[in-house]
This record gives sequence, structure tokens and C-alpha cells, in this order.
Amino acid sequence: MPTDRGQAAGRPTISEVAAEAGVGRATAARTLGGYGHVSPELRGRVLAAADKLGYRANALARSMSTGVSHTIGVIVADIGNPFFAGVVRGICDASRAGGFDTIVLSTYEDLDEEVAATNVLIDKRVDGMIIASAAVGGRDVGHIKEALNRGVPVVLVDRAVPSLDLDAVVIDNRDAAREAVERLIAAGHRRIGFVWGPPMERPPATRRELLEAASRNLWTDGERLRGYLDALDDARIPFDPGLVMVGRKVEERVTEEVARMLALPDRITALFCTETEAVTGALRALRAAGLAYPRDVALIGFDDSAWAAVMDPPLTMIEQPVHDLGAKAAQVLLDGIRGVEPVRETHTLRSRLVERASVAPPP
Amino acid sequence: MPTDRGQAAGRPTISEVAAEAGVGRATAARTLGGYGHVSPELRGRVLAAADKLGYRANALARSMSTGVSHTIGVIVADIGNPFFAGVVRGICDASRAGGFDTIVLSTYEDLDEEVAATNVLIDKRVDGMIIASAAVGGRDVGHIKEALNRGVPVVLVDRAVPSLDLDAVVIDNRDAAREAVERLIAAGHRRIGFVWGPPMERPPATRRELLEAASRNLWTDGERLRGYLDALDDARIPFDPGLVMVGRKVEERVTEEVARMLALPDRITALFCTETEAVTGALRALRAAGLAYPRDVALIGFDDSAWAAVMDPPLTMIEQPVHDLGAKAAQVLLDGIRGVEPVRETHTLRSRLVERASVAPPP
Repeated sequence: MPTDRGQAAGRPTISEVAAEAGVGRATAARTLGGYGHVSPELRGRVLAAADKLGYRANALARSMSTGVSHTIGVIVADIGNPFFAGVVRGICDASRAGGFDTIVLSTYEDLDEEVAATNVLIDKRVDGMIIASAAVGGRDVGHIKEALNRGVPVVLVDRAVPSLDLDAVVIDNRDAAREAVERLIAAGHRRIGFVWGPPMERPPATRRELLEAASRNLWTDGERLRGYLDALDDARIPFDPGLVMVGRKVEERVTEEVARMLALPDRITALFCTETEAVTGALRALRAAGLAYPRDVALIGFDDSAWAAVMDPPLTMIEQPVHDLGAKAAQVLLDGIRGVEPVRETHTLRSRLVERASVAPPP
Repeated sequence: MPTDRGQAAGRPTISEVAAEAGVGRATAARTLGGYGHVSPELRGRVLAAADKLGYRANALARSMSTGVSHTIGVIVADIGNPFFAGVVRGICDASRAGGFDTIVLSTYEDLDEEVAATNVLIDKRVDGMIIASAAVGGRDVGHIKEALNRGVPVVLVDRAVPSLDLDAVVIDNRDAAREAVERLIAAGHRRIGFVWGPPMERPPATRRELLEAASRNLWTDGERLRGYLDALDDARIPFDPGLVMVGRKVEERVTEEVARMLALPDRITALFCTETEAVTGALRALRAAGLAYPRDVALIGFDDSAWAAVMDPPLTMIEQPVHDLGAKAAQVLLDGIRGVEPVRETHTLRSRLVERASVAPPP
């Protein structure tokens, strides 16, 4: 909720003005932001409450200036991923409630496309941007800094970029992964495969090499890997680099790697999958090997879906709060557009382990 | 391919100019469209070939005028549907190859949102629009006519709107549905459920009432219903209105309706599902009734996916050429932007029945 951000700065928030005025937050935001329709009576109550509480923001000055297009731009890594489709739905719903239209560009994980997309949004004069960036290091963020330099607020979603001091809305990837792997360990597993790891050319010789590769790649994947290692460490299970898939992050590669892990002398008895394609790739490998879950191999994966629930047996999956993730990012961005001073924090939302029937003790 | 369109008008196409010049189509298009980078040598060859063949288009005049933003806008009914996500990918790939950026708006099947989205795109000065419209009748298309009146080319994708005389790129919904239902009939089924039909308040008394409701609703759904009826007619199987789901098009409703059809004295032995949610809803109903596919009930659905292939048994599904659908729509639109005279035809791409293991004879 934006409340905590305002309170951190010791100033009344829009929510507090709304409560004082006895109106909804959206009405207060419309009044204080100077956009959309608000009846004269409600407008009067909101302005009186704002006056009483000493609410101030450059919002009024800002949104009454010309050039506010009431459009926000969203750049996602891959709109074909149901995860991002859900995030975009949350952004659209929240921005629409705030009186803003949303335009979306998909970069398909290509940083050059992301740079081009940022330029398109600047050119189209959006009032702010939400970006799930393909950037993995400080050298990749010139385009985001360029947008900020032009006065366009930016909020990151799903993927924090450590080198950028910006508001970011993410889920608890590391905790979610740790909880899932702990669940497998609690069922008795010690040989737990991890798909997928960073796209390295060859398998890592050491844990350190693996973590270094992860830190040069996607933040989200790296956090999930750290959660896997946390759970192994807590249970004093030695790390085995042979149980981590590296290489191209595609379904075919997952199938190959899981087949390899199933053929080891001390084979895996459980799998933790960080993506939908990793789950479907793993299921193909199990079937090809004539193995069934949860009898021969236990399995937990990201992200929950209608399909996961109708599998036989149904799959235990991690459900991400995709709609909330998008809605929260939009709220933070709209606050920024209305002139609320950014606190540049990482907002972490909780995921949920949906327990079904794909975890059983080792055979 | 755009070739047939140019040939229909009796004029050389960009592809023919490209062939004559010995260059790729993209190079010829860039040269004739006056955008992007083309080396002086290739440019000279293309212009000579265009001259020799008598190629003419208002493309040059048009794209050299100011105001061309090299951006196209896409309005889809629901970006959360993997079908549209795939179509958008095809549009992005083809428009990028043609030197255009793509911005996307999702209306979540709300016609008011679609009108707003059209205004946003006009406001953002896109060079053309691709729309999967939620419009179902002539009274709903004012916003599309408005865009056309402002000189913005529009191509429809996935959904034809019969009252609009526009280029549309669709799949063979009716034939695809007929082929799938014929497959079920060939396996011996005569009691075949259909989910989902039009969102009627109460079940139709007659076939005519059902078809009238369908004609007032989404074109795609109506075509699939007609294909189902075609297959029944060809096999002289009498139409039973009790085997068609009507009402809200959501998974929960599918589960209720399939449960009802399974409880009939003369119960269904097969199901044809027109959407992914219809498939997952049907699978929930089968499981709740303690029935298995294909042993107790055969099943075919739209659309194929990685999940459908890893189900046990794997599902027989209809695969739509989603990427081609988007790419073709983008090609037709870019031709229009470059001034190629529109022929205002419906381009129909072929879907494919992917046979796996969810069809068996009736019990």
C-alpha cells in the first residue's frame, strides 16, 4: 500500500486524506491529481481534508501542467509468458482505475529491443514507465537512466536491477524457492534437481562459479537458485553441481538435462522447477524414462496455472500474486507521476505454495 | 503472401520487384517504402527493377511525408490468452523486420476499452492498427470507422467483423471445428457435448434460436459452433440443444455444464471444447464424476499447448498458426501503410488437428 511510503516521509498520504474526507482512495487521488470526474461536493470534502492534514505534493502543479497524456507505458520481457500477461492485467486494472491508459511493448528478452521500446515510449510521451528489464548489470541500464533524466518516472517490476536506485515491485523469489525445496527435504529427499540455472556454456565446477554466473544473469533466476542453496545448507545437504541444469533456457534442454539427472548412479528423487517450461520439460523426461510422479520423483514448480490443477495427479506449485504485482507497480508509478517523492525501495510481495499431489517420499 | 493481393489488382508486387532486383523482400520494401537503411547499390537495383516492372504505389509519397512514426498499434481482446500472446509475437516479429515498432493495448473483451484504446492509438499517431475486436455487430464499429476516416489503416485479426469491409486475417474456425467433430464421430460418438456456445440467459429451445444468439456474439465462437453443426448434419446426427453449453464463458461454468451433460440419462460420450478454459473446466468435471478420458469420454479442444502434450494421456488438440496469423496481419498492414491499395479480403490460414490420445470409441 502506498501508505507506508508516505508515512516513511512523515507526510499524510492520499489514503489518509481519503479517510479524513470519508471518500474512496480513487476519489481522493482524482481530486488531488486534478484528473477524471469528481462531483463538486466530494471534491470540496477532499480539498478540505487535504488542507486540514497538511497534505502537499507537487501533484497538483504537475498534473495540471500541459503534456500529461494520462498514458503509462509498460515494457515486459515476454508478453507470451502467462506470468507477465497476469502482471499486465494488474497494471491495466490499476492504471485504468487511476484514469490512465496503458500501452505495452514486449522485448522478448532482448536488451536492444528494450532500448528501442524505451525510446518509443519517450517519443509517445507517456507519463511514466513500468519495466521488467532484461538488463543484468550496470552497463545495461543507460536507457533507463535516459528516461529518468527526461523526467519520466520509472518503476521496475518482477526484476530488481541492483545497480539502479529505483522503486521495484517483486516477489519473494528466494524465500519461495527455499520453502519449496524445504518441503521436498521434509518429505525425505536429498537428491534434488534444480532447473533451470544460469545459461553457462559448461557445468560449473564449484558452487562459487555457479553463483558468479547467476549474478551475471537474470536477477529472478539467481534469487531462486539462492533459495535452493539456502534450503540445502539449512539441512546440511552437500551441494552437487551435477544436479543443476545450465545452458539454454528452453523446454528441450530441460528434458535433456532431467534425463541426465535421472540416469545418474545416485539419481535425483525430486525436482524443483523455476519456470513453466521447466515443469513441462521435466514431465516429458519423466515420461520418456517410464517414471511417474510423485511415486518415482517428487516435483514442485513455478507458476501455478489452471493446467497444473487438472494434471493427474495435480501438481504442487508456487502461485505468484501476479495481479497484485502489476497493480502495486501501477500504484507506485501513479504516485510518482502525481509528484509523490519516490522512496526508491523494493516492495516485496508474498508468493504462496499451493500443495497438491506431486510430492511424496523418495522411492 | 502479399503476392496474391498485388496480382489480384494486376500490378507488380514488392515481392516481384525484389525478385527482379535479386534482393530480399525486406530490402525492396525498405527501398520502396523510403525507410530504414539500404545500401546505395541495392537501392539502385530495386528502383531500376521497380521502374522496369512499372511498380507504382502511393507508398513513396506517403512514407516520405512527415508524421510517419514507424509504429503500429495492436488492440487485442485479452493479452492474457496465450492465443493472443502468440499472435502479438508474430506481429512484433514481422513489424520489426519491416522497421516498425509495435505497441499493444488489451481491452479484456470490453468494447468501451476498445474505443478508448483506439483513441489512444490515434492520439499516439501510430501509422496503422491491427485489431482483434470485441465488436459483434454494425453498431459497435464507429471507433474503427473513425480511425479509417482519419487515414489510419486498420487490419482485423482473428475476428472478422462482417459489417466492416476490411482486410482480415483469420483461421479456418468452421473447418477446424468440423474436422475435430468428424474425428469424434468417426470414433463412433453420437452424443457429443459442445463447450462453449454463446452467452445466452437460458438454453436455446431450437437450433435456430441458438444460431441467432451466435450471430449476435463473437464471430470466432459462432464459426466453431457452425462447424460442430456441419459435422452433425453430415453424419445425420440430430441436434440436441441440451448438449450445448450456454451462459458465462468461464471455467467454473464449463465444469457445471459438463457435469450436467454427464448426468443426462443419455449422457455425452465425447466433448468438443472451443477454448483452453473449456478444456480445463471439462477435465475438472470428468475428475469430479470419477470418469477418465478417453475411456469414458473422448475429448478434443482448442488450443494446443505444451501442457496439452504432457497431460496423461496427452490431449488431441487443434493447433492454430498463431505466429503466422500475427505475421500475416502485420504484412498486410505494412503494405497498407506503404500505400498498397487494400483489396479488403479475408485471409484464412489453416489450423491443424494434432492427434494424440484423448479420443477412443464410446464405452
